[in-house]
This record gives sequence, structure tokens and C-alpha cells, in this order.
Amino acid sequence: MALIVQKFGGTSVGSTDKIKNVAKRVLRHQQQGHQVVVVLSAMSGQTDTLLGMAAEMQHLPDLRESDMLLATGEQVTIALFAMAIKGAGSNAVSLLGDQVRIITDAMHTKARIKEIETDVIRKHLDAGRVVVVAGFQGVTSEGEITTLGRGGSDTTAVALAAALKADACEIYTDVEGVYTADPNICAQARKIDMITYDEMLELASLGAKVLEIRSVGLAKRYKVPLHVRSTFSENEGTWVVEEERIMESMLVSGITYSRKEARITITGVPDQPGVASKIFQPISDAGILVDMIIQNTREGQLTDITFTVLRTDYARTMEMLQKTIANIGAESVKGDESIAKLSIVGVGMRNHSGIASTMFQVMANEGINIMMISTSEIKVSCIIAEKYTELAVRSLHSAFALDKNNLPEEE
Amino acid sequence: MALIVQKFGGTSVGSTDKIKNVAKRVLRHQQQGHQVVVVLSAMSGQTDTLLGMAAEMQHLPDLRESDMLLATGEQVTIALFAMAIKGAGSNAVSLLGDQVRIITDAMHTKARIKEIETDVIRKHLDAGRVVVVAGFQGVTSEGEITTLGRGGSDTTAVALAAALKADACEIYTDVEGVYTADPNICAQARKIDMITYDEMLELASLGAKVLEIRSVGLAKRYKVPLHVRSTFSENEGTWVVEEERIMESMLVSGITYSRKEARITITGVPDQPGVASKIFQPISDAGILVDMIIQNTREGQLTDITFTVLRTDYARTMEMLQKTIANIGAESVKGDESIAKLSIVGVGMRNHSGIASTMFQVMANEGINIMMISTSEIKVSCIIAEKYTELAVRSLHSAFALDKNNLPEEE
Repeated sequence: MALIVQKFGGTSVGSTDKIKNVAKRVLRHQQQGHQVVVVLSAMSGQTDTLLGMAAEMQHLPDLRESDMLLATGEQVTIALFAMAIKGAGSNAVSLLGDQVRIITDAMHTKARIKEIETDVIRKHLDAGRVVVVAGFQGVTSEGEITTLGRGGSDTTAVALAAALKADACEIYTDVEGVYTADPNICAQARKIDMITYDEMLELASLGAKVLEIRSVGLAKRYKVPLHVRSTFSENEGTWVVEEERIMESMLVSGITYSRKEARITITGVPDQPGVASKIFQPISDAGILVDMIIQNTREGQLTDITFTVLRTDYARTMEMLQKTIANIGAESVKGDESIAKLSIVGVGMRNHSGIASTMFQVMANEGINIMMISTSEIKVSCIIAEKYTELAVRSLHSAFALDKNNLPEEE
Repeated sequence: MALIVQKFGGTSVGSTDKIKNVAKRVLRHQQQGHQVVVVLSAMSGQTDTLLGMAAEMQHLPDLRESDMLLATGEQVTIALFAMAIKGAGSNAVSLLGDQVRIITDAMHTKARIKEIETDVIRKHLDAGRVVVVAGFQGVTSEGEITTLGRGGSDTTAVALAAALKADACEIYTDVEGVYTADPNICAQARKIDMITYDEMLELASLGAKVLEIRSVGLAKRYKVPLHVRSTFSENEGTWVVEEERIMESMLVSGITYSRKEARITITGVPDQPGVASKIFQPISDAGILVDMIIQNTREGQLTDITFTVLRTDYARTMEMLQKTIANIGAESVKGDESIAKLSIVGVGMRNHSGIASTMFQVMANEGINIMMISTSEIKVSCIIAEKYTELAVRSLHSAFALDKNNLPEEE
């Protein structure tokens, strides 16, 4: 008898019929003798509907109230799902983050899990119930509802799997697994059978929508076997595993892109010690993540600082920077929301040079200007104009032969 | 500086624009120096939408899961409302039943309030915040979410007003107050300026939709001054007060009807001691309220027992009775969902005879058969076929001259 955590995203539970189908699928696992904890997202579209209403109420909706609002989405699906299991003749119970006791910090809309209690879940599992947990949400020790940020249901699932020492964490989605590139814009994209935690971390952080990055980090830390697979088929999906389990790694495992970021440039920044801290400390204090940062010395004592934030944080960041540039005596702040971040990822890069320069050459051949570059041991990322996204993905996919097994040549 | 509890129903907060308008109205009261606690229902239609989805999941949706599901409706409105107050430049905080600590029993979907803590609310009020509380919901001492039944937001509002010793409890609605009859089916209906708790109790229990009965009972017990008024105008509505405050009472204050009940008849019941208990104890144990009960001895040892329950409990009751009639050896159980309960209410009846017989005469003149009769000190109710509802209301309104002040003649 195995203990399995199964997470279903918004498209998998996007209608009452879909919920009933997923419930039947979960029941099959229970009837095979497994204990099953189900983690659910809100019905697809629901979170956006709620955010739309929030935006009508307040220019920048209060974060604490946003969490109060958004947490309802998952509450609806878990209740309906538990009913569906009961309607199919088995037993189930739905639990909110508060009721499981998924304790988080108080950083509203992007809270982090501090602790998960497992007593309540185990009690229900031992009583033969399917336990249906609201993804995406937690509660502070003071009883305030928090949410974990977009895609937080993956994090809930992996964190629960780790806390319960589950045998597997299955992430169900509307695609067959993790692909070498987004199949919607690259017809040659191929499903990956196995990928390392590190590669998946990069892909997730760089825009692959299939898994949320924190969930992969958690899975890596606690060695939770992660299986990304389709809600609508019985096919094996993509296993995310430790590197030791993969015999030969690809040079480039995948290409990904993100249109979720915006670029901000502060011009004419006095080149003095402490000025970067004055710019980035308030942003960090507001819980806004800054991704790439580039500093160009322009002339004499002045520099330009360019960095990227999520578009959802763009308005808040620009508002904060108006004060900042007055404080530090900078010239101006400019922003650009029409950018994309394009990345190639592969653990094979570690031992092979020339990957980045091939990438730059491909872009140059297509006439695509690279605005910012960022590299790590196993990835290269470029910021480009958003309109070139599809073209760049297809060209790179072809250049690195990702439609075939692109094992590195012996050197 | 007064402390006012203001309750807004689903139609008052039925859209984002309406929520913003109501928020402005509440803010005006706060700016006049009052402390305001707002109690909100779910957006109109939302509860029905959720119930519709639940019915697709499970034939008789699990009650615990129904509460989990339904409680989301109010959670959405309070979060949006708090944002709207903040968006208008003031301060607010939304609180769930669990966060206020509105402690109820564990009777899911029709829980009763056991205790309300006021510390959290007072703390926020003293900090200058509008406190926005989710109506309709509470929590058991074990942390399970409960709901108070349809119209439970009124109960939440009055219970909060009592617990906080508020100066007034204003119930906002989409009509101008309490009417002598439903204006939708009786054009002559007139707004009542003042009515006693007892009359309002009868009207509410007999189908007047403007106030939920438990809220009126609570208001009476704790002498909470209740003001039923329109969300969309500044006019005075109907005050619900103690009888001593009304100089002269009408003979009949109002006529009301309910189409929410169903009639059930068990035929051929052996006329033995304990048989009624065998019928009604399981129904009561399931939390189903039985209204009128009539027993007709038919022949020898057999009787027929007829009673009414809410239509929402009808399917469950009929299902339970299949077992019961086998147990007690009764003949059959029959049901009729096409009935209406018609009632006339007035404290003036206490000292005046002939009201009931006038009512029966009016019905006879219109050819309406009376199936069941029930009376109290200040009301007379009849069960009739549903199709005669409008006709009966209009005829009685006219017969008792409710469009004028129908003070009783001196005797």
C-alpha cells in the first residue's frame, strides 16, 4: 500500500464534469489499495475572475484581502470534489490550509510554508477517506489566510508529500509531461521522459508553466519523486529525479520562455556606495522579486541600472521608484512590459563550452537583438523583444536538434 | 458616537458596482463619527450557483461539504468590500466567522450560534476600521465551517449587534421595508412604519422574505432595535420594536405566504402509543423542521398523519419515511410540493374575535379549498393549493382593508 499525493490543476477541475472524471480516476487509485491525498487548484479562470473584481475595487488591491478573496477558489473545488467522491460511493473529506494546518509566514499573496501538521490528514487516511486539500493556501500562526502565489498548489502538493513521506507526488496537468519547448509554438517539441531536479528548477524558474519552481526546489531538497503527467490519459509522463538516476544527459534538455517579466531602467544614477541598496531594499521589503540586474557605467559619476521584475509587480515597483529616484537624485525611470525571457537549459552544458555562443549566433541570424544576458552552470537566458518569442524558440529548437536525442559528442 | 451593525443582502452586493456603492454608503456613516460593523451575504445568485454544482456531484450533497462550499460566497463579498472601502481611502478589515469567532453547534447547513467573541472586532473598530464580517457562517469549536441556513446573514447581524450591544441593527434590502403583503402580487400593499417583534416573528416565520425568523427572535430577546430599510434610498424603512412603543395596533398588520413548504401524508398508521415518536424522532434527529401536523382518525385502529416540511428537506424526508412506514406498519406515504401557506398576522387579533372566520369566508367566496389550518394568538395560517396564492393574498388584503389603517372598531 502506497501513500500518493496527487495534484490536479485548474484545467483538470475546470468544470463539474471534469471534477467528476478526476474523482473517478482518484478512486481507482484508492481501490488499488493506495492511500490518496488530493491537492486541488481553483477551477480554471476562477482566480482571474476574482482578481478582475478586486481590481475594480482598489487600484492596487490590498494583499491581505486578496488572499481572503483568492482562497475561496480552492475551497469551492475541494468541497465539490469531496462530494463527487462520496457521490461515487467512497468516502472523502475536504480540508482547508487552516484545517490541515499548513502554517506559513505572513507575506500575503506569496507566503512561504513554515510547517505542515500531518495528524489530521493521517487520521482521515486511516479512516479510509480520500483527503482533499486546498492547494495554494495556508494560514499564519495568527489565523490570517495566506496564499502561496501563482502555481502554489504544486508547492502544497510537494510539501505535503514531503511532510507525509509519500511514495510519490503526481502532478496532473493538461499536457503529457515536460516538453523540450512549448508545443503550442514549436511543433517539433518532444516530451521528455526523465529530467533532473536542477534542470526542472531552471525550466520552471524560466517560464515553463508545467511546474512551479518552489515545488521543484522542495522536491529536490526532500527527494520527493515527482511525476508530471496528463489528467486525460494513462501514459507515463515526465519523471523529475536526481541526476544520478539519469545515465546520459542531453546537452540542452529544453528551451523555455517567459512573457511574465518587465524591464525597468533607472537612468543617471549617481555612482556612489549604497545607492544600489537604496534602490533594491524597498523593493525587496515589499516582497517583490528582482530577477536580472545589469549596471552600465555611462559617463563620469552616473550609471544606468536595468533590472527585471514580474509584470504583476510592475505597477507597484514603478510607483515605489518614483520616490526612490527623488531620494537618490537619479534622472528618470523607464519601463518596458513588452519583453520576453528566452532560456536554454541542460546539465550537459556543464562540461561543454560554446552553447551560449551558438545561442547568440542563432539570434543574430534571425535579426533578434539581445537586451540582457544571464547565465548559470546549466542555463543561458536572454531578454529579447516579446514579438520575437516564437521565432526564437523555433530557431533554437532546431539549432540544438531537440527533436532528436542531442547527446553531446565525445570530446 | 454610535455603534451600528449594517447588514446588506445578496441583491445589495450583487455586482462590483453595487459593492462600491454600498461601500460609499457605509463610509458616510463612518465619516459621521459612527463605528460600523458591516455584515454581508454572498452576491445574489452565487449560493444557487454553488448549490447547482453540488447537486451535480452528489444526489444529496454531503452537509459538511455543502457548508465548506457555501461559505465561500460571503468570503468573496467581504474581501471585495474591504478593498472597496480601502479604495475609497478609508480603512477596513474583513473577518470570517472563524476569525471573529462566531462559534456554532455542529448542525451543518442550519447551525445555531452558541457564542460570539467581540475582542477582535472591538480592536479593529478602535483602530478606526470598518469591520466587514461574513454573514451566514460560523465555526464549531472543533474548527469545522458551518452555515446558519438561508437568510442566516440576518441572524449574524442581529447576534453581532446583541453581542456588541450595538445602538442599532440596520437590515438593508432591495425594498423600502416590511409591507402589508408582497407588493409583487398585491398592488395595494403598503409599507409598514412600525411593527412589533411578535408580529415580525410571525410574518418572518410564515414566509415574508425580508427578515429571517431567527434574527427577529434574537432581536426580541436582546431588545436589539431593528431597522429594515432600502439599500437604494435614504428613506426610513420599517422599525421592528417592542409592543409598548406602538400606540395602537392594527387588527391585521400583514398578509404573507410561503411556497417553500411541502405536505406529506402517511396513511394507515396504526393508532398505537409511541407511533408519532417513531415517525418524527428520526426527522428531528436529521435536523429537519416539521411545521404543521394534523392527525385524522380514519377507521378503527388506523389514522392518517399529515405534516409539512421545507421543500428543501422534502426528498430527504420522503426517503427516511420509506423505512419508517415499514417499521411501523403504515400503508403508504404521499407527498405534495404544490402547496402554499397563507397567513394573516396582527397583535390586534388578541382582543378581537372573528378574524379567522372572515378569512375562511373570503377563501370560500373565491372557491379556494383549505387543506390545513393553524392558529396562534396573533396569526391564522391556511395551507392551500399553490396556484391560488396570488388570488388569496389580494382578496384578503382587500377584505381586511390593509391598504388603509385598519384600526379595530371600538367594542
